[in-house]
Amino acid sequence: MNAHGTAVLDLNADLGEGFGRWRLTDDDALLSVVTSANVACGFHAGDPSTMRRVCERAAERGVRIGAQVSYRDLAGFGRRAMDVPPDELADEITYQIGALRVFARAAGADVAYVKPHGALYNRTVTDAEQAAAVVAGVLRAGGALPVLGLPGSRLHEAAARAGLPVVGEAFADRAYTAAGALVPRRTPGAVVLDPDAVVARSVRMAREAAVTALTGEEVAVQARSLCLHGDTPGAADLARRVRAALEAAGVRLEAFA
Amino acid sequence: MNAHGTAVLDLNADLGEGFGRWRLTDDDALLSVVTSANVACGFHAGDPSTMRRVCERAAERGVRIGAQVSYRDLAGFGRRAMDVPPDELADEITYQIGALRVFARAAGADVAYVKPHGALYNRTVTDAEQAAAVVAGVLRAGGALPVLGLPGSRLHEAAARAGLPVVGEAFADRAYTAAGALVPRRTPGAVVLDPDAVVARSVRMAREAAVTALTGEEVAVQARSLCLHGDTPGAADLARRVRAALEAAGVRLEAFA
Amino acid sequence: MNAHGTAVLDLNADLGEGFGRWRLTDDDALLSVVTSANVACGFHAGDPSTMRRVCERAAERGVRIGAQVSYRDLAGFGRRAMDVPPDELADEITYQIGALRVFARAAGADVAYVKPHGALYNRTVTDAEQAAAVVAGVLRAGGALPVLGLPGSRLHEAAARAGLPVVGEAFADRAYTAAGALVPRRTPGAVVLDPDAVVARSVRMAREAAVTALTGEEVAVQARSLCLHGDTPGAADLARRVRAALEAAGVRLEAFA
Amino acid sequence: MNAHGTAVLDLNADLGEGFGRWRLTDDDALLSVVTSANVACGFHAGDPSTMRRVCERAAERGVRIGAQVSYRDLAGFGRRAMDVPPDELADEITYQIGALRVFARAAGADVAYVKPHGALYNRTVTDAEQAAAVVAGVLRAGGALPVLGLPGSRLHEAAARAGLPVVGEAFADRAYTAAGALVPRRTPGAVVLDPDAVVARSVRMAREAAVTALTGEEVAVQARSLCLHGDTPGAADLARRVRAALEAAGVRLEAFA
Repeated sequence: MNAHGTAVLDLNADLGEGFGRWRLTDDDALLSVVTSANVACGFHAGDPSTMRRVCERAAERGVRIGAQVSYRDLAGFGRRAMDVPPDELADEITYQIGALRVFARAAGADVAYVKPHGALYNRTVTDAEQAAAVVAGVLRAGGALPVLGLPGSRLHEAAARAGLPVVGEAFADRAYTAAGALVPRRTPGAVVLDPDAVVARSVRMAREAAVTALTGEEVAVQARSLCLHGDTPGAADLARRVRAALEAAGVRLEAFA
Repeated sequence: MNAHGTAVLDLNADLGEGFGRWRLTDDDALLSVVTSANVACGFHAGDPSTMRRVCERAAERGVRIGAQVSYRDLAGFGRRAMDVPPDELADEITYQIGALRVFARAAGADVAYVKPHGALYNRTVTDAEQAAAVVAGVLRAGGALPVLGLPGSRLHEAAARAGLPVVGEAFADRAYTAAGALVPRRTPGAVVLDPDAVVARSVRMAREAAVTALTGEEVAVQARSLCLHGDTPGAADLARRVRAALEAAGVRLEAFA
Repeated sequence: MNAHGTAVLDLNADLGEGFGRWRLTDDDALLSVVTSANVACGFHAGDPSTMRRVCERAAERGVRIGAQVSYRDLAGFGRRAMDVPPDELADEITYQIGALRVFARAAGADVAYVKPHGALYNRTVTDAEQAAAVVAGVLRAGGALPVLGLPGSRLHEAAARAGLPVVGEAFADRAYTAAGALVPRRTPGAVVLDPDAVVARSVRMAREAAVTALTGEEVAVQARSLCLHGDTPGAADLARRVRAALEAAGVRLEAFA
Repeated sequence: MNAHGTAVLDLNADLGEGFGRWRLTDDDALLSVVTSANVACGFHAGDPSTMRRVCERAAERGVRIGAQVSYRDLAGFGRRAMDVPPDELADEITYQIGALRVFARAAGADVAYVKPHGALYNRTVTDAEQAAAVVAGVLRAGGALPVLGLPGSRLHEAAARAGLPVVGEAFADRAYTAAGALVPRRTPGAVVLDPDAVVARSVRMAREAAVTALTGEEVAVQARSLCLHGDTPGAADLARRVRAALEAAGVRLEAFA
């Protein structure tokens, strides 16, 4: 909620998650919905030509470009946590940011933030060493890039300590615990499958900064960005519905600074 | 030979050609000899940590950093020509430059030129389509980077046509034809194995811009840079001897602008 | 046409061409249509779990399993010709056959033939050196595996010379020249897009061993196998229609020995 | 110690750990020392041509061939633990065994055992889930292959439960705890650097089945195989010295059945 009583929200989604012949996300559909595009940088997905195209289209539509950095793991799509030594991990992050930046700049835009992908995202919620390594990699890349992630995560702590801006995100399709954390995926009910529920939760998160926990309690959710998923059938349709409902509710959709 | 009668020469070599656990080149030894370092960018060799270290050390010693771009082929070390569609190839080149640039800049330097590696180097001597693709990739990366390569190659033609500076190189350990081209590697005598001969040829190339062809003719060799090889046993020693002989002969060793 | 006047035909298609998170072919649908499955072995596509699943399902349905061997090129899906030295290429072929064989045998079946994929298929139509390398790789794998490919190709010549069985295939969705070769893909009309035409051509190839060339001539097509494509939308439907039409025309669908 | 009072010991080492242009181990030197070769299968190292060559030479010398299976991690040389889902891990193990087996059989030998590499070795000492996945992958490959590993490891427990033979190994260059476990690598003194000490410990392990712990206690070490390291300078020399000392002490060097 800004000074004028208007809720402001960023919508982010993962894009460009194909590789060579393979496609996953409906990039064009999602680019017409989101305000921030988390672009895969080649380590879990994202070949150079896809990166160029997504950057060009995002730039044309004024969608903010972020580096969706990952463990080096094409075979596992970056979903397998890895014990990467901190120095190596930092360098892998820097490399990915650099590779995306050249395409973003060629498209007349720039890399505007960083968000870890998959297992690296989950690991750096709690693993302070890897969180610090990711931040070291972001720092070395220059530009004091904001780090998009889970409020309260080790990653956000490390970023803030290093003087990087942190941007919190919420998930309308994920159940929350009474403490405001995400319910682990394996728990029954962890993922909200009903599209109407996802839409309603999105609006409430934006307007009231609140969500009902899986166990019934009211939980505060302070998020500047809402994460939409784009890699399942029907995902682009649901994303469009969420956006329309937010706009109808008077929420201003706008990328973070 | 510059205006004051002093020959000026750049010495370049491939560096950082390890990957993960594997090492190939004696980077520290070579960095004390060359004025330009062709740094592997991850497609045929060159993991992120190696790229960072080579950039840091090159920057400390004032050695110029170049992007040694390659086909994507770790298993073949970039030595197998590939029919990569031009658009894909251009994007792969841009990606590699971007990945190296972030490390060069973090080290307080920058990517100052581009040189294709291995099979891509050889292919773009004669293949105009791939030569144009490489140039397109360099252009997209920005900065109007000079292209280091073989004088008269399709690559140099395409680069010049696009307004990029071209820098010619010579090889003191390779035999030349009467027409001034390199003798193909499979021809007997194609590689000069005698270290004394390599040293003598280096000095003559620098002082007289000439070399004796395999078939005995005198051939003009106009080269602003001399390529030293670093991936064989004794290579660093030979490189040191070449440098010492050039300095003793009054050649000024200096990276191209 | 066998001794009893019944046409006998094998139907083959590429299967298991996903990698990790990515899927391409509708494997289950195709396995209910084909008699031979060309299974990707990990070099252009095909992660171990996909290979296992396809082998298990093929074995359950009595579909013959073949090794769809490729250049090592995940990023290019094996569609970029590569100048791989013959010894290396042979070893890469052997490796892929061995990797698939262990899954085929675990499923109670075996690798029953070999078919090169993509650029390797096209290259070995005319490149005798690479054709010989593929055959060398097949021989080293043991079992005297039949080689499925284009009649008259260098690959078939090399295989026959080495004493391997050769099995010719035809393409109902590709235009033929008057000489009986495939019209290059870039030529207008090279691909038959009309499903009815593809079905009619399939039946005629099976019953009359003939096809009308792009330039109007009647051409003989002797093929023991018909290649169906499975990686485009609607491909599985078309494959089903082709099979139904062949059966209605009295063609016996049966894998080659 | 066998029934006749003669100690019998297998000597194993990692071989073929190069990739393409890169070499690591002195395979020829080690093959003249060891009785069992742990051959890299392509996931952390080991290209097809190297696998073929090592199998051929091992077969010529009567050295037993084992599959040195690993996480899929060329960039990290298999030294970074990965949270691979059990089904995927099992399939990756099966794939690697199959790929090596075809070369072993082509050389007139066979894969005779399995030993996990690097992080997978360490992880399956304590992680029962991944240990069970490795065993599942070995079982699917067929042949009831023995599993070479640390006595008392989860891996050995899972293998024994599944009916696979287990073979215990010891490390003459690693310090042991009073409980008979390996001292973690980061602890000072974890690695025995003095070659004379390594030789003496080898002989004592073979003759007395004992070693002195880092903290001074006498510890029993029951091992049918001794692991020699081959990837450091001087490793082959040390391996030769160990072998000579064992033979001089009357130890019979012989691969396990």
